[in-house]
Amino acid sequence: MRAWAWLDAPPTLRLLDQTRLPQEEVWLDIRTVDALVDAIGRLAVRGAPLLGACGGFGVALAVAQADREGWDAARTASEIGRVRDARPTAVNLAWGVDRVRPLVGAGLAAVVGAARALASEDEAANRALSRLGADWILSRVDRPALRVVTHCNSGALATTGWGTAYGIIHELHDRGRLELVYADETRPLLQGARLTCWELTADGIPHVVQPDAAASGTILGGHVDVAVIGADRIAANGDTANKVGSVALALACARAGVPFVVAAPFSTVDLATPSGDAIVIEQRPADEVLTCGGTRLAPPGARAHNPAFDVTPHDLIAAIVTERGVVEPAPTPGVPLLPGLAPEAPRP
Amino acid sequence: MRAWAWLDAPPTLRLLDQTRLPQEEVWLDIRTVDALVDAIGRLAVRGAPLLGACGGFGVALAVAQADREGWDAARTASEIGRVRDARPTAVNLAWGVDRVRPLVGAGLAAVVGAARALASEDEAANRALSRLGADWILSRVDRPALRVVTHCNSGALATTGWGTAYGIIHELHDRGRLELVYADETRPLLQGARLTCWELTADGIPHVVQPDAAASGTILGGHVDVAVIGADRIAANGDTANKVGSVALALACARAGVPFVVAAPFSTVDLATPSGDAIVIEQRPADEVLTCGGTRLAPPGARAHNPAFDVTPHDLIAAIVTERGVVEPAPTPGVPLLPGLAPEAPRP
Repeated sequence: MRAWAWLDAPPTLRLLDQTRLPQEEVWLDIRTVDALVDAIGRLAVRGAPLLGACGGFGVALAVAQADREGWDAARTASEIGRVRDARPTAVNLAWGVDRVRPLVGAGLAAVVGAARALASEDEAANRALSRLGADWILSRVDRPALRVVTHCNSGALATTGWGTAYGIIHELHDRGRLELVYADETRPLLQGARLTCWELTADGIPHVVQPDAAASGTILGGHVDVAVIGADRIAANGDTANKVGSVALALACARAGVPFVVAAPFSTVDLATPSGDAIVIEQRPADEVLTCGGTRLAPPGARAHNPAFDVTPHDLIAAIVTERGVVEPAPTPGVPLLPGLAPEAPRP
Repeated sequence: MRAWAWLDAPPTLRLLDQTRLPQEEVWLDIRTVDALVDAIGRLAVRGAPLLGACGGFGVALAVAQADREGWDAARTASEIGRVRDARPTAVNLAWGVDRVRPLVGAGLAAVVGAARALASEDEAANRALSRLGADWILSRVDRPALRVVTHCNSGALATTGWGTAYGIIHELHDRGRLELVYADETRPLLQGARLTCWELTADGIPHVVQPDAAASGTILGGHVDVAVIGADRIAANGDTANKVGSVALALACARAGVPFVVAAPFSTVDLATPSGDAIVIEQRPADEVLTCGGTRLAPPGARAHNPAFDVTPHDLIAAIVTERGVVEPAPTPGVPLLPGLAPEAPRP
C-alpha cells in the first residue's frame, strides 16, 4: 500500500487524504505549491518520511508551476521555501527539499527523477530498518510472540511505503513473532485509531486501540514486551521528537524495564541539532483539542494547549534503529551519539 | 454548586446528568434502584466522593422502593447489594452503602438522615483537605502564582460539593496564588474537557485544556509547578487508583522533580487493601474508545482496551492529602503507610 503517486502529465502529486480515513478513501491531485502547503498544514499528508518525499516532489511541483506561470528564479526559490517551511518539526520535509533543490536548473525531468529516487531509497530504508529492528528486539526479548505498544501512525501511510516503527511490527508479524499490538488512539487527530488501526486491519495484525492515557498503565501492568515508535527529528545526542505522548511511553518503559525503541530512516537524524532542547515544537490550533469528530467538547470560550510533538530524552531510549544500524543510547547527556554508529552495522 | 439533591416526597435522588455537560444541564429524578444503577454505570453520576453519597442515598431509595413494592428483607438486601456493586473500583460507593445500611431496620427517615450526614461530612472534608493541600503545596513550591496540572474531574461535580484536587486548585485561586491550570481532556469520556473546564469557567479560574498525551511533555518542559489529582481508592501502602492516565503524570513529575499530590476524603482510603496490586480495575465498553462525540473513529471490527483507572505506586506520590492531614509516602514498598498519619494532623 502506498499513500502517494507521482503523475507526469500533467505534473501531479496524488495523495491519499488522511483526514478522511478510515471512513473514506479520497485522493487529492496536488498541482500547485499552495495546494501542497495546505495539504501538509492540515495533515491530509503527514508522517516524517512521507513529508520528506513531499519535499522532493514539492520542488517538482514548483518547477512545473514556474514553467506554466512564468515565475522568475527568485519567485521559484521563494515558493520552494514555502514548501520547506510548511511544518517545522519533522526534519525530513526540509531534507527532501534540500536534496532535490540543487537540480532545479536542470529542469523538471531531473527534479522528478531525484524525487523518485529519494522515495525509492526511503522505502528501501524502511524495509532494511524493519529487519534490523526486529532482529534487535528478538535478541533482547525472550518470548515466543511479542506484545507491542505503538503511538501515532508510522506505517505505509506515514512513509513512502512499508513503514518505520509499523514496519518493525509488520516484520515481527511476518516472522510469526507478534501476539498483539496496543495502538494508542493518538489524540487529538487520532492517527492511531483512524490510520494505524486501518493498516493493522488491512494487514491482518491482531490489535486493540487504547486511549493514550491507558498506555502507561498497560506498560506498568506487564502487558507489553516492547514499545516501538517513529520519529520526526532525532538530535545528534539521540533525543527524539515524535508525536505528542511518546515520552509518556518512554517513562513507563523505563520504570517497567521494557525496551523503548525509536525507528526512523537516517534522513530523520539531524546532526545539526545537538539535543532535544533545540528542536522547535509545532503548536497546532486549539480546535483540534476542543472538538472531536466534528463535535464541540469543551464549553464556549475554552482555550487549549496543543503541541504536536514531545521530546524523549535519549537516556530513556533503548535503541534507535535506522537503515544504517542500531544505536543503543547511553545515559551520558551532551555526548554526541549518532555519528558513532556501530562500525559493524550494515550499510545499504 | 452541587450536582445532587435529595427530595423527601416522593423520595428522589436528583442528579445532574454529567454525560450531557457542557452542552445541556439535564437533571435526572432517580426513584428506583434500577435507575440509580443505570446512572452510575453509564457515568451520568460519577466521582468517588459523590458515589459515596449515592451509596448512602441508594440505600434510602431501596428502602422507599421496598415500602412501595412490598419487598421482603432478603430482596431489599439484595437490591442494596446491587447499588454497592454498581462499579468496582471506587471504594466510596461501597463505603457509603455500608455506613447507611445498618439503619435500614430503623426506617426511611433514619436512613435518609444518615445519608444526609454522610454528604455533609464529605463536603466539610473537601473544604478541610483543600486548605491543608494548599498549605502543603505553598510550603513546598516557591513561586508567587502556581501552574497546576490536573486529570479528570475532581470538583463539585465529582463530590458532594467543592471538590478534592479541584478544591485545592480552587483554594489556591481564592488565595491569589494560582496562575494557570492545565486540564487534561481525559479520554475516553472527556471529564476534563467537558466537566473540569466547565467548572473552571464557572469559577473564573484561568485554564487550558490539553490532550492527555501532552501532559508528560508539559511537565518535563518546566511548565508545571505541581500536579494534583483525586483518587478512587487509596491502598494501605499509599498506592492510589485514579482515572486512567494519572500514573503518566506521576512518572513525568518524578522525572521533573515536580510534586505529585493526591487529594481525597479519608473515606477513599481502604486499609483493607494492602497495595495497588489488590485493586480491581474496571474495564469499560470498547465503544467509549472507538467513538467520540457520537462519531465512529476506528474502522469496523476494531477492538479496544478500555481500563477506567490506573494505579500510581506510592513512591511516586509526594503527598496524600485527606481531611485528617498530609502523608508524604516513603519509597519503602510493603510498609503500611496510611495508619501512620502525622500525629499533629488536625482531626475534624
